[in-house]
Amino acid sequence: MIVLLGATGYVGSKFKKYFEKNGIQCNCISRSDFDYSDSKLLCEYLSMAKPEFLVNAAGYTGKPNVDACEIHKTETLFGNAILPGRIAEACSRAKIPWGHVSSGCIFSGDGPNKGLSGFSETDKPNFDFRGGHCSFYSGTKSLGEEILSNFDSVYIWRLRIPFDNVNNPRNYLTKLMSYKRLLEARNSISHLDDFVDACWKTNLMNVPYGIYNITNPGSITTSEVTGLIKEFGICEREFDFFDNEEEFMNSAAKTPRSNCVLNTEKIEACGISIPPVIEALRKTLRSWQK
Amino acid sequence: MIVLLGATGYVGSKFKKYFEKNGIQCNCISRSDFDYSDSKLLCEYLSMAKPEFLVNAAGYTGKPNVDACEIHKTETLFGNAILPGRIAEACSRAKIPWGHVSSGCIFSGDGPNKGLSGFSETDKPNFDFRGGHCSFYSGTKSLGEEILSNFDSVYIWRLRIPFDNVNNPRNYLTKLMSYKRLLEARNSISHLDDFVDACWKTNLMNVPYGIYNITNPGSITTSEVTGLIKEFGICEREFDFFDNEEEFMNSAAKTPRSNCVLNTEKIEACGISIPPVIEALRKTLRSWQK
Repeated sequence: MIVLLGATGYVGSKFKKYFEKNGIQCNCISRSDFDYSDSKLLCEYLSMAKPEFLVNAAGYTGKPNVDACEIHKTETLFGNAILPGRIAEACSRAKIPWGHVSSGCIFSGDGPNKGLSGFSETDKPNFDFRGGHCSFYSGTKSLGEEILSNFDSVYIWRLRIPFDNVNNPRNYLTKLMSYKRLLEARNSISHLDDFVDACWKTNLMNVPYGIYNITNPGSITTSEVTGLIKEFGICEREFDFFDNEEEFMNSAAKTPRSNCVLNTEKIEACGISIPPVIEALRKTLRSWQK
Repeated sequence: MIVLLGATGYVGSKFKKYFEKNGIQCNCISRSDFDYSDSKLLCEYLSMAKPEFLVNAAGYTGKPNVDACEIHKTETLFGNAILPGRIAEACSRAKIPWGHVSSGCIFSGDGPNKGLSGFSETDKPNFDFRGGHCSFYSGTKSLGEEILSNFDSVYIWRLRIPFDNVNNPRNYLTKLMSYKRLLEARNSISHLDDFVDACWKTNLMNVPYGIYNITNPGSITTSEVTGLIKEFGICEREFDFFDNEEEFMNSAAKTPRSNCVLNTEKIEACGISIPPVIEALRKTLRSWQK
């Protein structure tokens, strides 16, 4: 049996569906069942439930977007750094392996090497508190990873700009179609179904614990995505872009955004294949559900 | 009535004594009374107790020293950043002004200006996560201050290397006499009685809320302090020093230490006077209690 924390969230609900679809018994725990951020309660629950594996898809992302994390700093820090730390301690005591949904947003840029090879799992985050320039959200996600680096038996799954074919305020494609103006940038992005499938396979295939970048291989620019949206006739309107990041920061954002390319060679080298970004996007837009 | 959180700690117990001595009614709350880090319980308590002021002297410092915070990262982050954030929210809702014991350890060096004028309250911390180089402890204390910057009606009292005339493992003078070898460095330091007195006066005198460096004015080097210890005949042994910080880091420490000079003009300009560091040290050593 698997325990899933944060099953009602955008990412967690995908894990829930995946487990249901694949006949994997899963106990979905929400805060209304019991406060799993309370170390004592979580330890008691784990020693009673004895799951084979735990998935933490809970975290604090800010609504409607990451700017909200600049105001709700305590909750952001608690949800993204303290909570994974407490889960790590509880799982370590109960000897339960687990996986944590982290984020690629702790990087900025195309990667330390020339070209678009992206940031690998051994690169130091450069868009976090220690990097000196970041959003509060990114800082807390990176602190979460730093705390987990003291623990064994945990997968750190880095998601990056989730999307799928269902209209949702958290879906990257919905966001692009609803924002008044867009920021041109190059990013790696993660189809949610591909992400969840790859995450689960790290456990199924017993690959070594540690950090894994889990995006669709490659990267894509904002205007390339909006070009595809128009090509598939999903949205008729003209997309309007900010002249540069400065204009975006001055008029539409409180805190800087991460835009980055992640390297996916580590997960692919484990034999876990993920469709390339352009393929995943075309498939998604072909089956788009309003 | 005053509420004091963390009354059993090294700093908190001084506040407790100070309030007793000055006939100030004080409710000392410890975690065994109730978990005041639980927002709901704290809010309920405050709306029932209705204190005029709250003092938070609780925090996570690591035992026997700050190296322990590198291992216990979740507790360190929780005690030094989440806890003050939750207190701020609870006090804000209940409209209770309060004071938070912070630390000058979020700085490194003699200050941004030439000479030994020290870091002032408007200077950005340079020994924290955002500064890029720090201990985990310092990083969390700075995050605590960052979270509190979103709130009004709170004093942030920066303590720095506490000492008094009573032998105690947390006392700077005891530490100097018990460590095998010492690191030569220049620091501002805080006599605990002077610190607590000045903290309380910020509230009594209704000075503007915000950050206050509360150390004995001036600075002193490690060898100057050990010179005084010998002069007063407190300790007969020869003090041995590391050749440099590198040797200290390689042989005795897991994480870098903050050594810094703080500027105390802001608190002094409020009419709150604190004895100069050399005067405070001589008085302390004259009345040393083994």
